[in-house]
Amino acid sequence: MAFIVINPNSTAAMTDSILAMAQAAAPGAAFEGWTSTLAPPAIQGPADVAAATPPLLELVTQAARRGAEGVIVACFDDPALAEARACAPCPVIGIGQSAFHKAALRGWRFSVVTTLPAAIPTVEGNIRGYGLSQHLGRVRASNVPVLALEEDTEAACARVAEEAERAVAEDGIDAVILGCAGMARVTGHLRTRLPVPVIDGVEAAARFISVL
Amino acid sequence: MAFIVINPNSTAAMTDSILAMAQAAAPGAAFEGWTSTLAPPAIQGPADVAAATPPLLELVTQAARRGAEGVIVACFDDPALAEARACAPCPVIGIGQSAFHKAALRGWRFSVVTTLPAAIPTVEGNIRGYGLSQHLGRVRASNVPVLALEEDTEAACARVAEEAERAVAEDGIDAVILGCAGMARVTGHLRTRLPVPVIDGVEAAARFISVL
Amino acid sequence: MAFIVINPNSTAAMTDSILAMAQAAAPGAAFEGWTSTLAPPAIQGPADVAAATPPLLELVTQAARRGAEGVIVACFDDPALAEARACAPCPVIGIGQSAFHKAALRGWRFSVVTTLPAAIPTVEGNIRGYGLSQHLGRVRASNVPVLALEEDTEAACARVAEEAERAVAEDGIDAVILGCAGMARVTGHLRTRLPVPVIDGVEAAARFISVL
Amino acid sequence: MAFIVINPNSTAAMTDSILAMAQAAAPGAAFEGWTSTLAPPAIQGPADVAAATPPLLELVTQAARRGAEGVIVACFDDPALAEARACAPCPVIGIGQSAFHKAALRGWRFSVVTTLPAAIPTVEGNIRGYGLSQHLGRVRASNVPVLALEEDTEAACARVAEEAERAVAEDGIDAVILGCAGMARVTGHLRTRLPVPVIDGVEAAARFISVL
Amino acid sequence: MAFIVINPNSTAAMTDSILAMAQAAAPGAAFEGWTSTLAPPAIQGPADVAAATPPLLELVTQAARRGAEGVIVACFDDPALAEARACAPCPVIGIGQSAFHKAALRGWRFSVVTTLPAAIPTVEGNIRGYGLSQHLGRVRASNVPVLALEEDTEAACARVAEEAERAVAEDGIDAVILGCAGMARVTGHLRTRLPVPVIDGVEAAARFISVL
Amino acid sequence: MAFIVINPNSTAAMTDSILAMAQAAAPGAAFEGWTSTLAPPAIQGPADVAAATPPLLELVTQAARRGAEGVIVACFDDPALAEARACAPCPVIGIGQSAFHKAALRGWRFSVVTTLPAAIPTVEGNIRGYGLSQHLGRVRASNVPVLALEEDTEAACARVAEEAERAVAEDGIDAVILGCAGMARVTGHLRTRLPVPVIDGVEAAARFISVL
Repeated sequence: MAFIVINPNSTAAMTDSILAMAQAAAPGAAFEGWTSTLAPPAIQGPADVAAATPPLLELVTQAARRGAEGVIVACFDDPALAEARACAPCPVIGIGQSAFHKAALRGWRFSVVTTLPAAIPTVEGNIRGYGLSQHLGRVRASNVPVLALEEDTEAACARVAEEAERAVAEDGIDAVILGCAGMARVTGHLRTRLPVPVIDGVEAAARFISVL
Repeated sequence: MAFIVINPNSTAAMTDSILAMAQAAAPGAAFEGWTSTLAPPAIQGPADVAAATPPLLELVTQAARRGAEGVIVACFDDPALAEARACAPCPVIGIGQSAFHKAALRGWRFSVVTTLPAAIPTVEGNIRGYGLSQHLGRVRASNVPVLALEEDTEAACARVAEEAERAVAEDGIDAVILGCAGMARVTGHLRTRLPVPVIDGVEAAARFISVL
Repeated sequence: MAFIVINPNSTAAMTDSILAMAQAAAPGAAFEGWTSTLAPPAIQGPADVAAATPPLLELVTQAARRGAEGVIVACFDDPALAEARACAPCPVIGIGQSAFHKAALRGWRFSVVTTLPAAIPTVEGNIRGYGLSQHLGRVRASNVPVLALEEDTEAACARVAEEAERAVAEDGIDAVILGCAGMARVTGHLRTRLPVPVIDGVEAAARFISVL
Repeated sequence: MAFIVINPNSTAAMTDSILAMAQAAAPGAAFEGWTSTLAPPAIQGPADVAAATPPLLELVTQAARRGAEGVIVACFDDPALAEARACAPCPVIGIGQSAFHKAALRGWRFSVVTTLPAAIPTVEGNIRGYGLSQHLGRVRASNVPVLALEEDTEAACARVAEEAERAVAEDGIDAVILGCAGMARVTGHLRTRLPVPVIDGVEAAARFISVL
Repeated sequence: MAFIVINPNSTAAMTDSILAMAQAAAPGAAFEGWTSTLAPPAIQGPADVAAATPPLLELVTQAARRGAEGVIVACFDDPALAEARACAPCPVIGIGQSAFHKAALRGWRFSVVTTLPAAIPTVEGNIRGYGLSQHLGRVRASNVPVLALEEDTEAACARVAEEAERAVAEDGIDAVILGCAGMARVTGHLRTRLPVPVIDGVEAAARFISVL
Repeated sequence: MAFIVINPNSTAAMTDSILAMAQAAAPGAAFEGWTSTLAPPAIQGPADVAAATPPLLELVTQAARRGAEGVIVACFDDPALAEARACAPCPVIGIGQSAFHKAALRGWRFSVVTTLPAAIPTVEGNIRGYGLSQHLGRVRASNVPVLALEEDTEAACARVAEEAERAVAEDGIDAVILGCAGMARVTGHLRTRLPVPVIDGVEAAARFISVL
């Protein structure tokens, strides 16, 4: 059976770009992309997380029942990860979690460029919860809403790049982490533009899940 | 409208003793006790938490819709508290959380006497997450399963008391916290037996919810 | 007997506004307001704390001797709280402590607006000591000295409001905490002006003390 | 070019079993095993670390010069990891670090079974330094010296297994981590005997290095 | 002018042995020993600290007025150190603080052998407050009350030594810290008996105060 | 025998000014200044630390063999301190470590003014590792490279002073720490210019080493 990449929001176009990134990151593994059709179209705050949790746990349970080798929860906020793990015997990892641990394994200090300012406390809290704050420069908002990444990719990419450049200039970092599953589609472009490594959580998770 | 005390497991007898404790603790307030009928009969580990989360969030949402003044999640593990808060505009607090903060406000060092050893990591993790580890002596298991508190209250009470006495003798503490919603029914007896204050999470939550 | 609210500085006008706030916050409880007449007129740094500590402990001892049900130390710096607790068997809580724990119980992230920049390290240190830094946005100075709150309330209120608005705009917070006992008299006005809850430490302490 | 697994002590037999484990763990990758011939025969305390550091850094520098794709420092104490990283542009990871991060990615609580009691403070300190203490049950000594693992494997294995069983019984853990590179040769046997996953640092590092 | 060593309890015999230790530790400096005559005879818990604080601050103020070069607060609990500092422009250090920082500067892991179990939480809390918990093995009680050190020195010494030997055997430490000012009189004997360095807080403070 | 002050970089002029500062700081003690001739001319990042570590450990070993009473590692980054301690039975301390502990013993909050922005993460990490972050205002770069302190002392001094003045104005601190061994030569001038104490790590270490 395959690894299941669950997009816990209901925007199927995001699932497509996430799956493409995962498959490219670990070509020898088999991935399926599932969309959580009963969830909100984007997860941008605790109310969205609450609404997205029950259908997410239901999908993880289904994945387990169908013998999934591993599950990736493909939202950078790593919603309900502990509960999701209890629904499946296989490895269940988050894309935020994977990005932070990749940087930690390399010994890198990083900044995160995420979407809206409202997303900052959750990301900061997760990094603190994982125990990895010593690697954190700063969590920065690009002021690009999640869905703008789908709708006007070019403009969104430019704004993410600007904030990432500020992070490089000001935060004394070794790497930039892209703080939204939807940014998978601009990772390539950013790598040509930034002088430090760019970590994408989907890519990191797709590689980790196959070796855990 | 009233304060809603949600028992996130499906054992109605527990809801009764919890509601009785809450009402006695804050006689001037109005409480309703709701049982999460779709949840497991007891929450004793991450798999139970995962199964209990979706119906719990559904009940919190209903409570909000009916204009609840406040919600108490009456399981000592404080499951899905952040998500529950996102489902309701009123205060939503946990009984573990309330017990720990009561001790902290008094400046007390405490030990927790809980049910089975498997419950220890979650309780320790919650205390650490709340930032209150500096008040913790030790989390101790009484080896009394949750439902034994309903089925053979006297024997269960004796074993909880023994472990609590060991905590007083060995942990250098100012107070004992009872680490299970079902222990509300033995709180009174323990208070006659122990030389230090006994904190019950349901009682603490019922008092806090009316002043937040 | 009543709850005693001790103003640990010697400015009696501050005691009056503190007592009025406490009484309004918990109308069913009886409060007395005591002024520490041998203390400095305001507590704005470690030298003032040192001078204020002996008369404060003397007042707490007197309160205990007269059978106080509880004691509130009504200075936002929470001076000598551990020592004060050792002088009385009843609950002894601070107003800074109460404000921070109220926010924590609600799961809120908060910023503090205090008086002068010199007050910032003490407040930050207390929050860290209580273990609640994960809830902190930023501690901000309004550059309003303590006594200006008594002498030119209107101008002081305007400056506190401006800094609070900056906190809301920049810190990603759910609530603002007013960082001085003397701000009790501007709490009402600020609540009409700010889009997030405003926590007053005197109010929080007056409610908590009656349920501990 | 290949991944270089450096055994920072001078016992070549240990290099052999380490290399065999690495190759088995990631069959698609190419590994070379290097022995630090100028180092002490075993690293069991800060004096050994000090003596082992200069030749280790020299080997990492050589690996970089020869175009290594990645370097594994195969001593569970993760000696001089930060300095080693500065000697090579490729990923440089430790086997202790890899074991702890593997457990963290799975959301597991773990205990470590290491060699002598003198090794405990270093391992505890490393886990704290990585920020992963929230996952730690206990670091336990098996009282088996490093070289006994080579010289009397069967007896050593029995004692490691006993301590690991105690960890499972007493520490409330999800997994056991073997705390010495030399334990790679008993991992298989322990997996047949213990009821929880057994994490070997060499195996974890060999898999991580190929996906970083 | 001289350095003032303040014994914050009223037992003058303790002041004598403390002063002798300080003078021997820094023979080139001039020390005066002051007894806090209005304080309790021993400080063994928060109530004693509260009673001892006002006369202590008064003595620190007097020392400052008389031009003291530095002040040592010679109680291992480091009572009211922050407030004491605010009463004097010269360095003010505690003997617990000095002992812990001496170990930290040497890179040592230590255990503390103190008097009664009731003293443990304060000592643990202080070490945590100083940020030095990573150096702590364990805080252990010898069950020797403070004044027994004056009244039956030989028996007291034997019991302290036994607990210190247990610490060496079980805690994986580099040094033992004696956790009471009154233990200065047994330091010499313990040094002949224990295989690791014995740190006395009075000695450490007497040396530090002259170089700050 | 004497105390050995090791300059772990190869710039002999720096050794001279370091030795002069150490000797002036503790006139009664005998110091020798050793230059690590095989190291890079300045240590400004992890690559320099890696290159400087082996010759540094070699020098510490020689110092031990020649009976040194103590060793000071005179680079503010405190490179390889744990390893260095394992090479010598005498006290081995760093100058960054000494500066931070001096401030902590005084109860001071401090900011550090260092050389280039790239030095900030190491200094922050060290302070966190020592457990002293609660004393830290901010680590600030003066944008003065290490060797500029030797080559154009006057201009370098002016820029360090400007950044230190900003720290005093903005960070709410009690003291400024100079974050480079080479700043010893500007300490005197800065003390005439700044309104708060200026801590020099070489001076602090020279005083501590003689009393440990």
